[in-house]
Amino acid sequence: MPEKEDLKEVIDQYLEKLERGELTISKLDKVLSPNLAAVVRRLFIERKTGKVLSAIASTILDFEELVGRNIENPIGAVQIPLGVAGPLKVNGDYAKGEFFIPLATHEGALVASINRGCKAVTESGGARAKVIKDGMARAPVFVAPNIEKAYQLVQWVREHFDEIKREAESTTSHGKLKEIQPFVMGNNVWLRFVYFTGDAMGMNMATIATEKACDYIEREFGEAKCLALSGNMCVDKKPAHLNVLCGRGKTVVAEAVIKEEVIRRVFKADAQTIHEVNLRKNLLGSAYAGSLSFNAHFANVIAAIFLATGQDAAQVVESPMGFTWTEVRGNDLYISVTLPSLEVGTVGGGTRLPTQREALEILGVAGGGDPPGTNALKFAEIVASAVLAGELNLLAALAAKELAKAHKALGRGMGK
Amino acid sequence: MPEKEDLKEVIDQYLEKLERGELTISKLDKVLSPNLAAVVRRLFIERKTGKVLSAIASTILDFEELVGRNIENPIGAVQIPLGVAGPLKVNGDYAKGEFFIPLATHEGALVASINRGCKAVTESGGARAKVIKDGMARAPVFVAPNIEKAYQLVQWVREHFDEIKREAESTTSHGKLKEIQPFVMGNNVWLRFVYFTGDAMGMNMATIATEKACDYIEREFGEAKCLALSGNMCVDKKPAHLNVLCGRGKTVVAEAVIKEEVIRRVFKADAQTIHEVNLRKNLLGSAYAGSLSFNAHFANVIAAIFLATGQDAAQVVESPMGFTWTEVRGNDLYISVTLPSLEVGTVGGGTRLPTQREALEILGVAGGGDPPGTNALKFAEIVASAVLAGELNLLAALAAKELAKAHKALGRGMGK
Amino acid sequence: MPEKEDLKEVIDQYLEKLERGELTISKLDKVLSPNLAAVVRRLFIERKTGKVLSAIASTILDFEELVGRNIENPIGAVQIPLGVAGPLKVNGDYAKGEFFIPLATHEGALVASINRGCKAVTESGGARAKVIKDGMARAPVFVAPNIEKAYQLVQWVREHFDEIKREAESTTSHGKLKEIQPFVMGNNVWLRFVYFTGDAMGMNMATIATEKACDYIEREFGEAKCLALSGNMCVDKKPAHLNVLCGRGKTVVAEAVIKEEVIRRVFKADAQTIHEVNLRKNLLGSAYAGSLSFNAHFANVIAAIFLATGQDAAQVVESPMGFTWTEVRGNDLYISVTLPSLEVGTVGGGTRLPTQREALEILGVAGGGDPPGTNALKFAEIVASAVLAGELNLLAALAAKELAKAHKALGRGMGK
Amino acid sequence: MPEKEDLKEVIDQYLEKLERGELTISKLDKVLSPNLAAVVRRLFIERKTGKVLSAIASTILDFEELVGRNIENPIGAVQIPLGVAGPLKVNGDYAKGEFFIPLATHEGALVASINRGCKAVTESGGARAKVIKDGMARAPVFVAPNIEKAYQLVQWVREHFDEIKREAESTTSHGKLKEIQPFVMGNNVWLRFVYFTGDAMGMNMATIATEKACDYIEREFGEAKCLALSGNMCVDKKPAHLNVLCGRGKTVVAEAVIKEEVIRRVFKADAQTIHEVNLRKNLLGSAYAGSLSFNAHFANVIAAIFLATGQDAAQVVESPMGFTWTEVRGNDLYISVTLPSLEVGTVGGGTRLPTQREALEILGVAGGGDPPGTNALKFAEIVASAVLAGELNLLAALAAKELAKAHKALGRGMGK
Repeated sequence: MPEKEDLKEVIDQYLEKLERGELTISKLDKVLSPNLAAVVRRLFIERKTGKVLSAIASTILDFEELVGRNIENPIGAVQIPLGVAGPLKVNGDYAKGEFFIPLATHEGALVASINRGCKAVTESGGARAKVIKDGMARAPVFVAPNIEKAYQLVQWVREHFDEIKREAESTTSHGKLKEIQPFVMGNNVWLRFVYFTGDAMGMNMATIATEKACDYIEREFGEAKCLALSGNMCVDKKPAHLNVLCGRGKTVVAEAVIKEEVIRRVFKADAQTIHEVNLRKNLLGSAYAGSLSFNAHFANVIAAIFLATGQDAAQVVESPMGFTWTEVRGNDLYISVTLPSLEVGTVGGGTRLPTQREALEILGVAGGGDPPGTNALKFAEIVASAVLAGELNLLAALAAKELAKAHKALGRGMGK
Repeated sequence: MPEKEDLKEVIDQYLEKLERGELTISKLDKVLSPNLAAVVRRLFIERKTGKVLSAIASTILDFEELVGRNIENPIGAVQIPLGVAGPLKVNGDYAKGEFFIPLATHEGALVASINRGCKAVTESGGARAKVIKDGMARAPVFVAPNIEKAYQLVQWVREHFDEIKREAESTTSHGKLKEIQPFVMGNNVWLRFVYFTGDAMGMNMATIATEKACDYIEREFGEAKCLALSGNMCVDKKPAHLNVLCGRGKTVVAEAVIKEEVIRRVFKADAQTIHEVNLRKNLLGSAYAGSLSFNAHFANVIAAIFLATGQDAAQVVESPMGFTWTEVRGNDLYISVTLPSLEVGTVGGGTRLPTQREALEILGVAGGGDPPGTNALKFAEIVASAVLAGELNLLAALAAKELAKAHKALGRGMGK
Repeated sequence: MPEKEDLKEVIDQYLEKLERGELTISKLDKVLSPNLAAVVRRLFIERKTGKVLSAIASTILDFEELVGRNIENPIGAVQIPLGVAGPLKVNGDYAKGEFFIPLATHEGALVASINRGCKAVTESGGARAKVIKDGMARAPVFVAPNIEKAYQLVQWVREHFDEIKREAESTTSHGKLKEIQPFVMGNNVWLRFVYFTGDAMGMNMATIATEKACDYIEREFGEAKCLALSGNMCVDKKPAHLNVLCGRGKTVVAEAVIKEEVIRRVFKADAQTIHEVNLRKNLLGSAYAGSLSFNAHFANVIAAIFLATGQDAAQVVESPMGFTWTEVRGNDLYISVTLPSLEVGTVGGGTRLPTQREALEILGVAGGGDPPGTNALKFAEIVASAVLAGELNLLAALAAKELAKAHKALGRGMGK
Repeated sequence: MPEKEDLKEVIDQYLEKLERGELTISKLDKVLSPNLAAVVRRLFIERKTGKVLSAIASTILDFEELVGRNIENPIGAVQIPLGVAGPLKVNGDYAKGEFFIPLATHEGALVASINRGCKAVTESGGARAKVIKDGMARAPVFVAPNIEKAYQLVQWVREHFDEIKREAESTTSHGKLKEIQPFVMGNNVWLRFVYFTGDAMGMNMATIATEKACDYIEREFGEAKCLALSGNMCVDKKPAHLNVLCGRGKTVVAEAVIKEEVIRRVFKADAQTIHEVNLRKNLLGSAYAGSLSFNAHFANVIAAIFLATGQDAAQVVESPMGFTWTEVRGNDLYISVTLPSLEVGTVGGGTRLPTQREALEILGVAGGGDPPGTNALKFAEIVASAVLAGELNLLAALAAKELAKAHKALGRGMGK
């Protein structure tokens, strides 16, 4: 570490090189330590834009740890407020007990909204949550010369599953190839590889393993080429009905029965009106809109938890797809949420960043589980339960407003 | 501000109250200053979970500013690495010049990938970008007693547009009601209000204005009730074809012609193979998957910019919907991206947070534009151009791999 | 007309020519009268296949009238059983009174099923039906050199709507161009022309008018080419959400309130169970299946009426898209059907064939209405009402089965 | 058979009863022979409507054979012109040789269009066709009290597959239960039963077998009820992505390479322009429209063959879903069509009607195959090949127009 004076000189020198185009911002990491490179890079951006980036500079992140793993060309960090909702009682197969839900967001009222939902769920005995399917998918597209060869490729893959599995799994310690789902269109073939990926969300693991498997298939089958390692039937970071139907990551369901007294006290609403809002908004409205999501705002809850816990923010695209279903039981409300494609992990990616790791610790799911995979399953159950709480609260809030108006109308003698 | 010793005592006292259930974590803000409440709340969570949350605690955020506007129940912040890609040359109607793109992510290789795309686009003369539609939507669902009244409601709204507009706009200084799109299903009616919202993403503005308008409609039309202020045809935070077709937020297109020499030098690829990857992956693959997005990874770019600049992370759901289209022109590559539903703003929401605001300043779009709306338009053009760069790079990377294999195969005498 | 003996000789002579390949079956109409050509063609097919086609030969159709308008290469006709359901009471804006519904089908139980639905609807006071939108669409795709020109094309079309309308309407006596809906993707532009087409379904009218308009646009705008007169955003004969949202042909709704007593007597069911079947089958099931149709079997009713009345059978693809909605009102059942894209006509196409024309006459809608368009509107109201009857019956049948089981269960003391 | 005079008297007598409401048109079959009942019914409709239905009356159909199997409340028949296209050379696994395609339609130009496509395909060596999946599906929806029981139901069904299969197959001689695909949403479970159904389209077979299986499941599992035998995930007669992905009926592909010389001579077009039309119309246009079908007009061909051969006309909804894919190979054109959900049979339903049976005989596929199922497979290959021919012709026609314009433009010195 150079002296402060020297440091300034070094920085100036590199700023000059950047200015003169002798160096690019990407190359800085090759000639300076990552933390120093980040400083120089930030100062260069400040110079080019004439803006002071002092807030971005104020970070606890150590780029020595992160460059080459989580980020390139860093200049600092963004800070997002972190709130907590809860406690939320969860009765999962893995998550058992009461949890405070960490939520990173700057959307006012969101934490309060989920918090109120947690209260109602918890006071009604908690949410029952269950992961019913688990598997990360990667689907390369192969091109065959004709449909005959396309068909043979599918047969060949079926017959050589064990060898392909061996190739794929040779690249990973935890990953297990569960199945290969084939889809044929003319002379194009998608092979959707589905993996158990332990506590990792697993996309990188799946990609690397699939690449190895594809090399093998290309070489051994010999009559089709792998055009692209991802052929958009994975489906990663795009909303697609395929994931609704076949699942990706964890397929999770959660449910609760909210007692009449709780609905009235916490929400000033009633089960029948909440049910009606669910039917006309979440079912009819989404159907008419050509939507893949029949819910009110799964996305708000999932985005806030994903940001808090270091999940891949681009998977906010498909993870909130799913269905909210309600039933009036007596005067109580049965509510369930189904999330076919929740992509979460407790190791890898952003989960190792300091603040994100602490957020996972709040839930007791930081790092790998014992046995492997159980931490991610526990996490998925908690996420689904929080989604349930958020959904309940919004539907009830809409219903309460309607109810309030109905009451006023009744007062004016109009009836509902 | 109490003395340090006293402070510790105060904190302990509140921790005890929380412990004994005399207070909830939500109520703390009513009895303590937001920053102190955040400390107590964090310590309480630490006590309940047995984990130290020192990283989360280390933040520059001042909750005095944020509680009640951007967050509730705060305990600190999460920090996400911020990198930059570029420079990216943009030829927009509003964005003109070279820009460094701020990207908050912990997905390794993402910044580098976009950076390489920026290089190729910029060296080819830059991206032409254009906003072709602009309007934030909110769609309440009304319930009429029968189809006759449903039909009359639609007619009535058409005839009373001016009055409804006056009501809606009475709630906002910048917002302008552009149109109301009606959708009828039996006795249900969705009225999709579309607003010009200046430099704000505008969802809150649209919600408040629409609520006022709905009260008016309910009162004056008198024969239909507004069941829910959002009837899921807005469509907010759910992937839906409605937004692809009708747009929401900004509808933006961007294009570039990448020269053969650049493709070869930067990507080690060729236009024909990139085109083929686009066709079989982005078009065929997405079609087969039942996807609403015919692109490779718009979501990665959008998520990273959204996190950097304080956009609503839950709108990562629908903002990356869109199409990538390629043409081989001679040996050059024409590429365009179309984003029908890009929801961005430069004022409001998370844009006022310190690090996020600085990220906007890097792009020269922090705060309101002059005239109003122009900053958001400029920002949208830059986002679309960055998406173009990211898309180009990924397609080229996939193509290069294929090309490399083809070359090897040629070497072995197999042909492609 | 030759003598019988001579006729045989002529036929044999042409059969020989066909056999020797001196003539093709398509060319026969150029050298023989259509009816004789049909005989020779059929005999040739009999000879090639070794099968007697006497049933196909037994037809009242006069190919003199049909070749060049409705069919090429005819060999006879297929006969499909025609049944009637009803009477069905309809309270439309145009259709008023009781109607017998002609249904051509060979699916056993279908006519009986619709008939029972008609009975319940009629005994409950009939179906209220209403056409809420009307317009036939054709959407050519234009290719511009870049997004700037694509954008300019859209502006230009908006500014020159009157001239384009004049060009389009110069090709038709009844057709009126109502609007042009533009959709832009990169440098591709779809212009969706929407026409009022009188009593004709109107696709040919729309195609011809649009072709003229496109020639004008290409010539006058000069910087974009019309690649294909149909660019698949019309959307004709493909299931697409665009038609659900924007409508094509007639957008029709129909509703009825079925009294408790009728439900019990006619269906042995109850409103609550019918409602539950509608929710879980038509809404949840279709949502999960990624369907564009949230109904039970609109298609059965529409296919049978279309075949009976000479509608375009390939439009059975999209005409049955739509929604069934139910409400329990007291112990009565409110039910509505919404058909966004019902493509029907009472003139043109197959409506001039003898049996089909008679089927239209049964409904009192054969030929053009006065004023033009009213027959097609009346017809659309009747179709929607018949769809309502069919839908009601199937949902009730499913519910009755469930109810029966519930009763048995109650008898065994299990409760429902 | 009564004397003519007596007959008139009998008829008059029944017409009076109908008039006075002592009898309904449905009850006639219980008191008169079906053929006589049809006459009385028709005369009654004539009397009520004041229209003569002599064309409808002129039929070869014998209702003695049909009432109770294919139709109720018959009054006669509709006649639809039947043309033939071809010969079409097919190289299938089952269909080998040249075929004339029977097409029932009244859409002018359709037969000619398919005929020209057949010519080009046949002259290029014929269409390679292949069925890659085969199975008819029926998907009841079960309701469980909660997600735990829903999950257990799925497990139970998996464990008891053999018993369930035995129950299901006890109702059919040909049908074989291949698999049960489970889909869970909260406490709702769809079980999609997939059957081999021999030469029958098989929906009735599947329905009856599934009902038996459901009774068994309800009884033995005991904790979930079957709410509806069809839960809309079958998916029958509704357009749904589920069928695209999972198949229903036959999943068929067909392909051909059309030589440059043939394209030029038959179509006055070129491979490159046809390819471009396919990309921008069938892929981009359908993607933008939110379509489930990425083709030009599969529906026209399928509707015409379905009507000709006695297939279920309401399955025209989903059978034409599918993809057209093209490649330019040198100056030749590779084209393939993929039909995931083609529902066809050669026995049962309308295939036993006289004209429809003859149409099947033209193709050599009337009745059951040996071994069972092979006639339906052969038929499916022919249908897919005809669809290929029709698709090729329309794309080429659009391309030719474009090409013609390009030539004219070239003549005027504008270039393309």
